[in-house]
Amino acid sequence: MAETQYDVTGIGNAIVDVLTQADDAFIADHGLEKGAMTLIDTETAEKIYGDMGSAVEVSGGSAANTIAGLANLGARSAYIGKVAKDQLGEVFAHDIRAAGVNFDTPPLEGDATTARSMILVTPDAERTMQTYLGACVELGPEDVPDELIAASEVVYLEGYLYDPPRAKEAFLKAAKVAEAAGRKVALSLSDPFCVERYRAEFLELLEGHVNILFANEDEITSLYQVENFDDALQHVRGHCDIAALTRSANGSVVVAGDEVHVVDAETVTNVVDTTGAGDSYAAGFLYGLSRGDDLATAARIGGILAAEIISHYGARSESNLKELVAQKLG
Amino acid sequence: MAETQYDVTGIGNAIVDVLTQADDAFIADHGLEKGAMTLIDTETAEKIYGDMGSAVEVSGGSAANTIAGLANLGARSAYIGKVAKDQLGEVFAHDIRAAGVNFDTPPLEGDATTARSMILVTPDAERTMQTYLGACVELGPEDVPDELIAASEVVYLEGYLYDPPRAKEAFLKAAKVAEAAGRKVALSLSDPFCVERYRAEFLELLEGHVNILFANEDEITSLYQVENFDDALQHVRGHCDIAALTRSANGSVVVAGDEVHVVDAETVTNVVDTTGAGDSYAAGFLYGLSRGDDLATAARIGGILAAEIISHYGARSESNLKELVAQKLG
Repeated sequence: MAETQYDVTGIGNAIVDVLTQADDAFIADHGLEKGAMTLIDTETAEKIYGDMGSAVEVSGGSAANTIAGLANLGARSAYIGKVAKDQLGEVFAHDIRAAGVNFDTPPLEGDATTARSMILVTPDAERTMQTYLGACVELGPEDVPDELIAASEVVYLEGYLYDPPRAKEAFLKAAKVAEAAGRKVALSLSDPFCVERYRAEFLELLEGHVNILFANEDEITSLYQVENFDDALQHVRGHCDIAALTRSANGSVVVAGDEVHVVDAETVTNVVDTTGAGDSYAAGFLYGLSRGDDLATAARIGGILAAEIISHYGARSESNLKELVAQKLG
Repeated sequence: MAETQYDVTGIGNAIVDVLTQADDAFIADHGLEKGAMTLIDTETAEKIYGDMGSAVEVSGGSAANTIAGLANLGARSAYIGKVAKDQLGEVFAHDIRAAGVNFDTPPLEGDATTARSMILVTPDAERTMQTYLGACVELGPEDVPDELIAASEVVYLEGYLYDPPRAKEAFLKAAKVAEAAGRKVALSLSDPFCVERYRAEFLELLEGHVNILFANEDEITSLYQVENFDDALQHVRGHCDIAALTRSANGSVVVAGDEVHVVDAETVTNVVDTTGAGDSYAAGFLYGLSRGDDLATAARIGGILAAEIISHYGARSESNLKELVAQKLG
């Protein structure tokens, strides 16, 4: 097999987060689905934005957060996602490049704006996301360069990509190119509501294309429509080479054929904002795999990164994650 | 005198902060004036932005920070400043209104973008600001409604307003309308380099128009071109009704005719980012005056707010400042 240029290339919805603090009354009064990611139209976006408090704008996007985390850790990484030619698009492009990620997807020319996700963080540290997809709906297979995918050890795809109409084609193209080049395909299920929307397609993907699956407890039980975690665990075993299943404060469980690891969560003194916990876990896990760690160590690194990200506001870290991991692993 | 509608109306450069962490080498390599606010052109802005790390976008602007702090404290407040019709302009307008401030200045139609200040926070918590004024250069007297100024107990002006060409006219108009209506004029000297640029004009303002002056030690010694704080103190006594002079860790000194108060700084365990310390002090001090506190108490509230803002990243607070002040004053 040819030498690779990247450890991981991610494809996702390129989103700028608009982070604010909100109380439960705000969530209830606006009829929002607490803890979930909901897609909204321009009108709803304007209504919620008008009603909510002062905010902070920071680059986000599920796969983009993972890829930025990987770059911070020192992994060679690239990202594919669609922004518009506007100020928030420049912010997104600047930040992911500043993190050390290769990002070359041409911005969209047209009326659509860069995607925004209003993230309402409640006092319980839970986040409720209202996403306006904007330019993301224009991502298509033409944005996925064959040579980039073939030059990446792993292509990492977020389930959210099934929401915009043509991103699914981009997703499937990437999976096929990776397979043909002997590379690995990783998938994050993203959100239990996303799993509801695309269950049949995700199950088919798992059978046919996915080598490494990331899912939390809600997502994996939703996928298999089972009542409890262990039932889901038994189902997923035959479906992909490696499944890394996160369980919030209960840590994570990694399954790979006959191998099973149950890894406890890192201690977190003060949970501030759970945004990006899953994205960070995936970054840590893929980083571990990229440097040849065993699965249990990779899961532990995932847990270290998740603990770091939920200890502060926002889904990307400015800390030196490589040092943090070295110190925690001892 | 007619009833007032606002406690304080601020006029300033409407700016979105682009906050990032940087090391001293970055400051040195780019030939930046550490700790100062420097005006830059588009080309320099693009160069620095391209080189610097991931950032967070958050509404800023010196007077705007003060006014947002006043609104947070429960004071009736309004703001005048010029943004462009773009995404960062929407962010600025949203945030100041969400803070509870009346903000009605029409956005600029044209090519200029909303002003941005790249704020590089070094590990010593010092901030170095590189500001691109954009739409702010179009603020003029037509943006200052007479009735708004006449309906405000205090009009608060930032020295930075002398940088854009026509804002000075807006500034002088506001001062005259306030005077004619029997209202008070407050001025912040903003920055020692700003004082260098406009010393003669600021001295004339103090003689003729200013009732309440805010300055830090560097600014007030620069204004009078004296070596030490006490010399500046003796000069300023005759120049305005009230001078509130801040001295970082040494607290503040308030002079009003024969009355002098030396107020110690609040204890701060961990100084993270000094951006907005002076703005917050002014908010606390003006809040104290608005509710009839004596000068020493007003200075203490200023110190409480300054201590709060330097304990975290960014120049605006999401905490409940009213509760904080009540608790600290006991």
